[in-house]
Formats: sequence, C-alpha cells, structure tokens
Amino acid sequence: MADIQGSNRDYIRDGDEIYRRSFAIIRSEARLARFTPVEERVAVRIIHASGMVEVADDIAMTPDFAETARAALRAGAPILCDSKMVANGITRARLPADNAVICTLDDPSVPDLARRIGNTRSAAALDLWRAHLAGAVAVFGNAPTALFRLLEMLDAGAPRPAAVIGLPVGFVGAAESKEALIADGRVPALVVKGRKGGSAMAAAAVNALARDAE
Amino acid sequence: MADIQGSNRDYIRDGDEIYRRSFAIIRSEARLARFTPVEERVAVRIIHASGMVEVADDIAMTPDFAETARAALRAGAPILCDSKMVANGITRARLPADNAVICTLDDPSVPDLARRIGNTRSAAALDLWRAHLAGAVAVFGNAPTALFRLLEMLDAGAPRPAAVIGLPVGFVGAAESKEALIADGRVPALVVKGRKGGSAMAAAAVNALARDAE
Repeated sequence: MADIQGSNRDYIRDGDEIYRRSFAIIRSEARLARFTPVEERVAVRIIHASGMVEVADDIAMTPDFAETARAALRAGAPILCDSKMVANGITRARLPADNAVICTLDDPSVPDLARRIGNTRSAAALDLWRAHLAGAVAVFGNAPTALFRLLEMLDAGAPRPAAVIGLPVGFVGAAESKEALIADGRVPALVVKGRKGGSAMAAAAVNALARDAE
Repeated sequence: MADIQGSNRDYIRDGDEIYRRSFAIIRSEARLARFTPVEERVAVRIIHASGMVEVADDIAMTPDFAETARAALRAGAPILCDSKMVANGITRARLPADNAVICTLDDPSVPDLARRIGNTRSAAALDLWRAHLAGAVAVFGNAPTALFRLLEMLDAGAPRPAAVIGLPVGFVGAAESKEALIADGRVPALVVKGRKGGSAMAAAAVNALARDAE
C-alpha cells in the first residue's frame, strides 16, 4: 500500500512478516539443537527480544521448566512481575486463560516495608506476592534483590510458584541470584547465566510459553 | 538490618550501594575514553541496563546529541516513547521539569491508521506524536518501523524533535533504521549500532540525560 506521506524508504512494514523473518534468521544462526521444541520457542523469543543469537548458549532451564510453566499458564496461573516493564512487555492477547498480570512495586506499603526489612523496594514488593504465589509463574527481569528475596521467602516456607523466570540483569548480584535459583532446585526455573537479562527477555519468555503459535 | 524472614543469604540489599558498585565496575571494564563527561554518563547507564560492557563500542552519538538532549529535558521537552516499556523505564523522579512522558501506541485510532498507511501499529502511533514533536526528545526502544516512520515524517516536513534516542532491537530493520538515523543528520541522535538495543537501554539513556547526579 502506498505510504500517505509519499515517502519511499525501503523497509518491511508488515509486522507478521517481520516476525517470520526474524525467527527464521534466529533459527539459522543460533545454537538451538539442545532444546526441546517448547524450550526452543522460549529461546528463540529471548533471542528475538535481545538481538543476540549468542545468548542461546547462556540460557539454562531445569528439565521440568518449560512444560510446567506452559501448563501453569494454561491452567490460569497468575503472572507475578518484579517490574512494570516486565508486566508491560507481556502480550495480553497471547495469554491462554486471561491470566492476571501482577506487579506490586507501586503498592503504597512498599517503601515502608523496604525500610523495615532493610532491602530494596523491588525485594519488599515480593512480600505482597504471598497471596498469589502458590502455583504462580514468577517473573524477574530487573532486580537481583527480588529474586534473592523469593529464595528467602521459600526458605521460610512461603508457598511455591509453579515456575520461576529468573532474568535479572546487571553487575551486582544478577549472576549470583541466577546461580542461586538454578542451584536451589525447589522450583522449575529458567535463567540466562551471567550479567545479561532484563525485562524484555523476561516478558519474551512468558510470551513464548503463553502460546504455541508464533 | 536483620531480615524479618530470618534468612541469611549473602547479597547486597542497599539500592544506592548496588548502583555505586555497578557503575564502578562498568567504569573499570568499559572503553569509555572517547566520550565527553555527559556522553559517558549516558554510555554507563546504557551498559548498566544491558549488563554488557562491550556495548560501549557500538554506541554512536552525533556530536551535538548529549548536550542538546540534556538541555531540551531541562527546558521541559516532552518525551515521546515508541512503547510502554520505554515509558515505564523512565524514572519520573529524575526528570528535571516534570516532563510529559507520552506513548500513543494504545490510542484507539492506531489500528485503523496502521491499516490505512500499510505499516505497523508502532509506526502508525507516530502520526499522533505530531502535536508534540517540535523540540521533543523522541525515544525508540522497540520498533524499527517506528524509527523509519519518523524519518519519513521528517522527509515530509514534520516538526523536528530536539533529539532522537534510536535504540530499536532485533533482526529485521533494526540495524538499518539506526544507520539511517545517524546518516540522516537532521536531528541530534544516539544509537547502538547493529541488532542490540531495547526499551531498557532507551529508558536508561533518558534517565542519564535527565540528571547529572547518578
């Protein structure tokens, strides 16, 4: 279709075609052979969100992660997000059961709670996840302190989520929090090892698990 | 302070200290010598958001970008965002003039407009930027089509933004849209060359320019 501006810059304007070509490029370049079909779709979307095929080599999932998280979403599990960026990156139209997408970071009680527990607001916000935690999909795209806090809550007997997407990013605590999650073994988990991660990758993992269709 | 859960996992819980250590690690590892002081703060925050010191080498700014964007924000420029993830990543408390943060993607007119112009919704949403565009800071963390669309609007005589943060991510059009922006020369611009980019890096650049204090 003609552009109403009359401009003739040469680029692909069809969103579906952009997705198809992007996924084809990723599958031609990334090392994906070690993944199951469901895991592979998760890996492809994480790569798509980051622009980096090499991140495939840093993705680690417990063997039960992909199927468990996929089944939990189909069964209507709430999706608990450590940041609004993660919540905003989740494509609501892909969710299989009109799943609740919850971020408690802006709750007015969080700053006081953070002072009381001597931790970040991101970590304190998790104390408000408690009522939703059993069987939920917990998603971390920002704060290592929040992921560490979840492990502490599990240590203290908090209800277990069905699966954890652990993708905090950064230079202090991110790699360590993800190592702790994978070593923990109590809940099915996905991480990108090392410093890389972020809200876009975290939301992409949810979007991949939410639907088989790409 | 003792953790109310009684758990003793070893990690840094002080948000300010996490920032300080993160920025110190970045400055010790990344190649930042070619940047001016303002540019360097932008680069450090982009690296911080991505977890990748090597991205420093892919950052390109026109010589007038950093000072122009910083001055525009101080003068109250609106911040136009191509996605809600970018808008949510901007720390409102850092903005120097209670700047408006605008994302038009959810406007009800956008789907029809996208069909009419034969482009993505992200690109169509830019047609609703027009009233805010003169002197604005335009921020792209997602869609190459949106960045191409801005260039088309400028080709057709649209008002010029003060500065453009061009950080679309991905495999189809992202690298090309950023090359086109830097080659364009009409507006001060920042890009990360190649496939890398994203909403977190884009918001980080705004957060760096919004305040000199880290």
